[in-house]
Amino acid sequence: MPLTSDTRPVPAGEVRPAEGQPETPFLVVDPERVGRNIARLRSRLAGLGTPLRPHVKTAKSLAVARLLFDGEPGPITVSTLREAEAFAGYGYTDILYAVGLAPQKLDRVVALHRAGVDLQVLVDSVAQAEAVAAVTTRTGVRVPALIEVDCDGHRSGLRPDDPTAVRIAETLERGGAEARGVLLHAGGSYHCRSREELVAAAENERASGVRAADRLRAAGFAAPVVSVGSTPTAHAAADLTGVTEVRAGNFVFFDLVMAGIGVCGVDDLAMSVVVTVIGHQPGKGWIVTDGGWMATSRDRGTSGQPVDQGYGLVARLDGPLYPDLVMTDASQEHGILTVRPGSPAALPNLPVGTRVRILPIHACATAAQHDEYLVLDPATGGVTEIWPRLRGW
Amino acid sequence: MPLTSDTRPVPAGEVRPAEGQPETPFLVVDPERVGRNIARLRSRLAGLGTPLRPHVKTAKSLAVARLLFDGEPGPITVSTLREAEAFAGYGYTDILYAVGLAPQKLDRVVALHRAGVDLQVLVDSVAQAEAVAAVTTRTGVRVPALIEVDCDGHRSGLRPDDPTAVRIAETLERGGAEARGVLLHAGGSYHCRSREELVAAAENERASGVRAADRLRAAGFAAPVVSVGSTPTAHAAADLTGVTEVRAGNFVFFDLVMAGIGVCGVDDLAMSVVVTVIGHQPGKGWIVTDGGWMATSRDRGTSGQPVDQGYGLVARLDGPLYPDLVMTDASQEHGILTVRPGSPAALPNLPVGTRVRILPIHACATAAQHDEYLVLDPATGGVTEIWPRLRGW
Repeated sequence: MPLTSDTRPVPAGEVRPAEGQPETPFLVVDPERVGRNIARLRSRLAGLGTPLRPHVKTAKSLAVARLLFDGEPGPITVSTLREAEAFAGYGYTDILYAVGLAPQKLDRVVALHRAGVDLQVLVDSVAQAEAVAAVTTRTGVRVPALIEVDCDGHRSGLRPDDPTAVRIAETLERGGAEARGVLLHAGGSYHCRSREELVAAAENERASGVRAADRLRAAGFAAPVVSVGSTPTAHAAADLTGVTEVRAGNFVFFDLVMAGIGVCGVDDLAMSVVVTVIGHQPGKGWIVTDGGWMATSRDRGTSGQPVDQGYGLVARLDGPLYPDLVMTDASQEHGILTVRPGSPAALPNLPVGTRVRILPIHACATAAQHDEYLVLDPATGGVTEIWPRLRGW
Repeated sequence: MPLTSDTRPVPAGEVRPAEGQPETPFLVVDPERVGRNIARLRSRLAGLGTPLRPHVKTAKSLAVARLLFDGEPGPITVSTLREAEAFAGYGYTDILYAVGLAPQKLDRVVALHRAGVDLQVLVDSVAQAEAVAAVTTRTGVRVPALIEVDCDGHRSGLRPDDPTAVRIAETLERGGAEARGVLLHAGGSYHCRSREELVAAAENERASGVRAADRLRAAGFAAPVVSVGSTPTAHAAADLTGVTEVRAGNFVFFDLVMAGIGVCGVDDLAMSVVVTVIGHQPGKGWIVTDGGWMATSRDRGTSGQPVDQGYGLVARLDGPLYPDLVMTDASQEHGILTVRPGSPAALPNLPVGTRVRILPIHACATAAQHDEYLVLDPATGGVTEIWPRLRGW
């Protein structure tokens, strides 16, 4: 289903064969760990009886999405219309665009509906609802919208009891659009410090969503959808009564932020950046690599956690971590590796030319610095597959 | 001069015509300000009698490089072999690769020489020199190398008096390669707090380079090149005696880090990100936009400066800043704009759908999040040109 509305070329979503040995820095993904991470969340949500609508914004990869659904197109969440258009081109027809709508983007939304995609949009103001209603009236395409509810004060959305939600639903339906329900994202869960806090954040997300949906229903709207999600709360929820779907994205790869709040172990991380040692500053205990922030991103998401992992931990190509070796500084194309202060570990002997892997602080941000994932043969280290990533908006 | 060694497609370097109105977020560049910034540094260096070898790592754009040299290919600095290969394809033949060499990359270096490019590489160890010498011996291509000298302890390189430099030069020339001189980058200048500190950083960079080159010359090597550079020191140097070229990259666009150390004014910033307002949290004084860290990068480079500019300052599409409005938080596709604490300024009335510009903290990092620059018509706001950016390594 190619989309004429997308004037930019859709990159090949298909896996490509390898084209020789890559040079550093490059991104590697471990399909076995990705599969294990997916199975873990699927099994958890099956136990709770709630379907998963994975967020493809982390991987932005058709190959990863195929692992999510055993090769079939399933319901997905996207962070950009670019992702929606590309995945629509791959046959995905049930898509939730989970970023508040800029009214200027409605023409692309309508084009996706006309191409057969049930694309839900997100609003938290009467102004946005008016724009959705107007485009529905103008085009005859009935656009379904979720109302964003804010359960923890971290970003967008209305408080669960805000009567504005009913006004938004009225505005949507009066114009022929659909108030399909509510959406929440417990972004505050990224700052939890214990399992108990994570469980409480998940329950707050659930209860806030059910309360907001019940208010819409009391006002006469069907509001069938209660969509919640974040990787921490998806892995912590003890009960999802009243929730109709769970969104999560980071769980396919995990990262050191997630490990720092106890959602995964470091050994679960399924993606890393391969870099090469290009020098040493022995007097300062530094190993210098050719992987700077251009390869890892500037994300320092563990800097507020109990253990600051800098720009990432350092592992051998074949797996194990170097004890207490941390990427502590970055410029555009240089990384600095040092032993964590206070550690008894010695700086490993890594001559110029040695390749190591940097485990990411924030998988979404690190992956965004690259155009593709490489899959390596565990036995030979050779590249067996290349998985393209989407870019842009 | 297309290069067969580059198995990846070289993106079109040419300016493209516009393809309709873009949707946010997108990157805009002001060619008039770029031209003014280039003229300012050119004029400065002409007064000091030292040529400029601009670093193309900031803009990664043929269109910007053309403004640097009045349309002709001139001497350039690159941060990746990808840049070297692409600019070689555009006719640039005098290229300095200013990141310490990973020996595995020498085949691409040789391929560029065979394609007619005088590509200089950078080394700071005997191991790297041995690799350069070996490839020269093996291929007959005489690879020129600069020896990296560390003038302020911030990253790579040998101290100016380290006798290892002579051993490196001996290793290079014994194998038939060329020890062409020394290279320094006063990265510490990014942390200067006054004009006096900047001038001192520039003089330290110059003097360290001359001292290191003189030691090579005393040992019998010609070492004709003393290459120094950073945007702050290029704009501060009072004397460049003994320096043969100045590298700088950021100066074409400037950013809030540069403004914070006094190298430019905020009005000199030539690049920004256009975003759209998608919501409000009136109780918290937040304006929410569709431009998150995916559009701005995670760079928080002013967080250690006297004035923390968050993720950027906010300006109207037609130019002026909103008083004390700062992008203070970011998630992947959301930005939060707030009035600076303590400011008497009121939160501006920016309804959903309003477009504003975010002035970048770090131009190199922000630009890297995008695939192209748009040039807008100052009168109509319409897109007149699209300038592609290079990606990858």
